[in-house]
Amino acid sequence: MNNSKQTVQIVQKILTANDDLAQQNQTLLDSKGILALNVMASPGSGKTSLIIRTIESLADEIQIAVIEGDTAPVTIDSDKISGLNIPVVQINTGGDCHLDANMVRLGMDSLELTDIELLIIENVGNLVCPASFRLGEHANIVVASIPEGDDKPYKYPNIYRGLDAMILNKIDLLPYVDFNIQYFKAGISALNPGVEFFELSCKTGEGIDRWSDWILEKVKEK
Amino acid sequence: MNNSKQTVQIVQKILTANDDLAQQNQTLLDSKGILALNVMASPGSGKTSLIIRTIESLADEIQIAVIEGDTAPVTIDSDKISGLNIPVVQINTGGDCHLDANMVRLGMDSLELTDIELLIIENVGNLVCPASFRLGEHANIVVASIPEGDDKPYKYPNIYRGLDAMILNKIDLLPYVDFNIQYFKAGISALNPGVEFFELSCKTGEGIDRWSDWILEKVKEK
Repeated sequence: MNNSKQTVQIVQKILTANDDLAQQNQTLLDSKGILALNVMASPGSGKTSLIIRTIESLADEIQIAVIEGDTAPVTIDSDKISGLNIPVVQINTGGDCHLDANMVRLGMDSLELTDIELLIIENVGNLVCPASFRLGEHANIVVASIPEGDDKPYKYPNIYRGLDAMILNKIDLLPYVDFNIQYFKAGISALNPGVEFFELSCKTGEGIDRWSDWILEKVKEK
Repeated sequence: MNNSKQTVQIVQKILTANDDLAQQNQTLLDSKGILALNVMASPGSGKTSLIIRTIESLADEIQIAVIEGDTAPVTIDSDKISGLNIPVVQINTGGDCHLDANMVRLGMDSLELTDIELLIIENVGNLVCPASFRLGEHANIVVASIPEGDDKPYKYPNIYRGLDAMILNKIDLLPYVDFNIQYFKAGISALNPGVEFFELSCKTGEGIDRWSDWILEKVKEK
């Protein structure tokens, strides 16, 4: 396409501007002692279910808020979270395929930051675009799930790179799906040597405790 | 962001250029009597498995070729298809989140079009970006799967709109997952009144015959 060179230049400007805004977000979060998680995943891997389990596990110990990224103005996920009496801000990206630092800042401006210790940011369900946009988060998390298949780290390496924790959800479906955990883990380890790896089931609750303990330790370090 | 207005203008130019190229692709496909399918889905919904089942079902009756879109230069999917002695061209998008008409044209240029009756284009696994880029296809197909959840048509309406066929894969997992087919179907029907709807399992083979018959009829209409 004739416009490709010009487009690349502008995208680079936007990415630089986004990185600057992400840094400002992180500085503000740090000043308030808030730990921010960027939760990324394919649609339907269980991001919202994981956030709900995390809230159920930790809401008595720490103050939690959620920023919910969605491409469409439906409140299916936000309603589930606000039903747990947790502050939640939904960001409708208007069809865009990822959150960016500016959207997250707008979300932060709608929250009482002094009351928050843990901010969970649920990104748009997408294994490609969110990888390029930092938000100001302190930890990047990808949620994969057993039915998606064990080859995803090899096929979508950009989003599986630079992770602080890797969650493999829906392990209750292991008996019914062909999934080689060693092959999957090898792909994760090649991109993220020594990354924290959590196998769990948001349906049965198996493995949630270890994940919650990991977050709690991170919050207390802030 | 300061650049947003300029960016929108350029994206519109690219989309117009893409639509023009898509039209040229379709004209070329029509001149060769080829039916082209654009298969879109979330990562791990079973696009490649469906293509393999389709080939196994139809390769004795019609000539098939595949264009395989991937964000990374791994040949996991292409190897599976070429193992069936079917011409396959892999397009590495270089991290991009969708195929476009220019990429598909490059793929078409690598195929012997006079030998082909059905061209299956496997798009990048993504429920957002591929919706905006026509490729020259005659039919748009989305593959969803039971474990992704029944709310996806409501949360990703852009990609679920304008479909010629909707495939619900992995119905063998229905006993183990909370999934309300009526709720899912209502979301699909609201966006695509009267669309062809196929419930199937690429694992067990259930429902593949009806899907293959539908394609065969479309190919014979060309």
